[in-house]
Amino acid sequence: KLMQKMNDLRTPALVVYKHKVEANCERMLKLAKDHGVTLKPHFKTTKCLEVAIMQTGGTKCGMEVSTLVEADLLAENGFENVIYAYPISPHKTPKCAELSEKMKSFVVFVDNVAALKALEQWKLKDNKNWQVLVEEVVKCGNVTFSGLYSHCGHSYKCKNAEEIKEVGKMATNKMLTLVDELKKQGITCPSYGIGSTPSCSKPAPEMSKLTEWHPGNYVLYDLMQVKIGSCEIDDIASFVLTRVIGHYTKGEDVFLIIDCGWTAISLHGVKDSEETSGYGLIVDHPELKLAHMSQEHGIVKSKDSTKPLDLSRYPVDSFLRIYPYHSCATCAMHPVFYVADQNDNIIDHWRPVKGW
Amino acid sequence: KLMQKMNDLRTPALVVYKHKVEANCERMLKLAKDHGVTLKPHFKTTKCLEVAIMQTGGTKCGMEVSTLVEADLLAENGFENVIYAYPISPHKTPKCAELSEKMKSFVVFVDNVAALKALEQWKLKDNKNWQVLVEEVVKCGNVTFSGLYSHCGHSYKCKNAEEIKEVGKMATNKMLTLVDELKKQGITCPSYGIGSTPSCSKPAPEMSKLTEWHPGNYVLYDLMQVKIGSCEIDDIASFVLTRVIGHYTKGEDVFLIIDCGWTAISLHGVKDSEETSGYGLIVDHPELKLAHMSQEHGIVKSKDSTKPLDLSRYPVDSFLRIYPYHSCATCAMHPVFYVADQNDNIIDHWRPVKGW
Ligand SMILES: Cc1ncc(COP(=O)(O)O)c(C=O)c1O
Ligand SMILES: Cc1ncc(COP(=O)(O)O)c(C=O)c1O
Repeated sequence: KLMQKMNDLRTPALVVYKHKVEANCERMLKLAKDHGVTLKPHFKTTKCLEVAIMQTGGTKCGMEVSTLVEADLLAENGFENVIYAYPISPHKTPKCAELSEKMKSFVVFVDNVAALKALEQWKLKDNKNWQVLVEEVVKCGNVTFSGLYSHCGHSYKCKNAEEIKEVGKMATNKMLTLVDELKKQGITCPSYGIGSTPSCSKPAPEMSKLTEWHPGNYVLYDLMQVKIGSCEIDDIASFVLTRVIGHYTKGEDVFLIIDCGWTAISLHGVKDSEETSGYGLIVDHPELKLAHMSQEHGIVKSKDSTKPLDLSRYPVDSFLRIYPYHSCATCAMHPVFYVADQNDNIIDHWRPVKGW
Repeated sequence: KLMQKMNDLRTPALVVYKHKVEANCERMLKLAKDHGVTLKPHFKTTKCLEVAIMQTGGTKCGMEVSTLVEADLLAENGFENVIYAYPISPHKTPKCAELSEKMKSFVVFVDNVAALKALEQWKLKDNKNWQVLVEEVVKCGNVTFSGLYSHCGHSYKCKNAEEIKEVGKMATNKMLTLVDELKKQGITCPSYGIGSTPSCSKPAPEMSKLTEWHPGNYVLYDLMQVKIGSCEIDDIASFVLTRVIGHYTKGEDVFLIIDCGWTAISLHGVKDSEETSGYGLIVDHPELKLAHMSQEHGIVKSKDSTKPLDLSRYPVDSFLRIYPYHSCATCAMHPVFYVADQNDNIIDHWRPVKGW
């Protein structure tokens, strides 16, 4: 299976450029280091063990997860200090107890009283305390207050680095005010972080006053991040490889069929419109747009409806590469990621953990 | 793992009612039999071996697939006469040759000359001929013309059984005219079928003049099919089981958070609007709509924006069931289907084949 050529892959296939993932991971580790904060990278985009190792710079320490299967995978592979950055609910207490007892540190996030009561009532082995992150402060018996956590989702409304920095600054200042108020009440806040991919990719100087950042999507980036201003198009580390499988001319309507449908790229993206590229960007073909998605095929049209496609430029069996609009969503559709080097050799297969 | 209770499942979980799948499969087999046509059921909705067996009434004969991994799964499990109802392209010829040589009958669908030439140039073992379905007729050396195939996708625009029957009648008549023309040219058409789930669920009497039907979605049905008029809401055989994990009140905005996001139900569906239920229908709760989907959580609001939610009716950890808008899309998100009996015991786990 190793040392396959990319062009031998059966399509559709999700291809990941390892050197780009490495560069994205290293850049974010360095940014965090330069700002004096701990990087707590989020696992939700790829859910592949190999990527978690890169995200932590090999330390296997401090990942964040959105599902319990991600936590299981990391726990089984020697990761420590995992944060379950998802509102815990009472039903998930027993599983979280198991993870808290198994790992040196497993931190949960609480946003309601019912969940907190369930933790209080569940005694961990060896008198271990639950470690709890919150958006506002709580006090309980067997619960250690681990810090304040905010995602900074507002940064997804930005359109350039300046706007991102402004949002990052505001979110940081809000967080720091809360930390100060706590201090006045005699409560020390062990950690306080914000962080989405936009705010950590283009950090405001103020963000150095936080203790941690927790971006996730940056490992692959995508078109959405390019539009927000988080990254350049060449930073996008994954694409769907697809082949042209047919040519159609129906009256005025001239289009290509490709073997990538919504099962391979997801329906995330901007619907068919003249200005956009649709559900993804067809690399090196600014004249094309991904106009329609069926389960197993896609329809590619001319972006400029006044210029019909010259079908002879896209022979049957020729390749197209599609940058996803939302790489988390595209990754969720694939059982295997085909890992490529700079020479388009397939050097590895990564298998994401699936389910909940 | 067997004889779990549904309410013990970690959520989100895709639950399939076995008795409903059985009833849907039996009803379609009977409808086809009553109309004197062969049912060639499509595998693309569930991609679970157990369902293919039910779809063929245990004969393991005559399934249709949309991907080569589906064909592999069926071939490995003793299925015969599999139709690859997807435009073949030259790159897929070697794999299709393998399947053609392995199975008594493996039929491919051709819609372009490049693909047909690739088949002509690839000699199958033992002088076997390629078996080819088309939309229009072809003649070639080592290629046996197996019949005419049309999906009848227009039926997806219908709004009730009468409209569906009208579309089914028109599609049938068009197909029969083509068969007649071929006959005049001395070409016998061994098979000619149409069939989407709407047209086969509410068949026009004329459809008895076809040799085969090929619906797929009917095994589970979904909200889209209810809206089209293909089935009743109680025929929907799968739902996403989710728990309420939080309550939020932000000014006027009162909402529930559930542990079902787009990774569990997909983004297919009708976007947030006052009249619709959003991305799925919350069973037995006409007052609720699924307003927003994140990766791992959903936001549930009052359908009537003038009546804010009474949160106490939906305690944290309580269950909601969501009927998918498009069950093929929801199934594509799940590595395991939890199979339930009428008493909500989980009696089996089905694992769909993934990839391409
Ligand atoms: C709680 C939480 N933390 C961190 C992240 C990572 O942010 P991003 O996707 O912008 O990298 C997310 C993303 O959804 C999140 O939900
Ligand atoms: C070629 C083909 N045949 C049959 C079907 C099954 O139709 P339905 O999904 O309406 O059951 C489909 C569905 O997409 C299809 O693409």
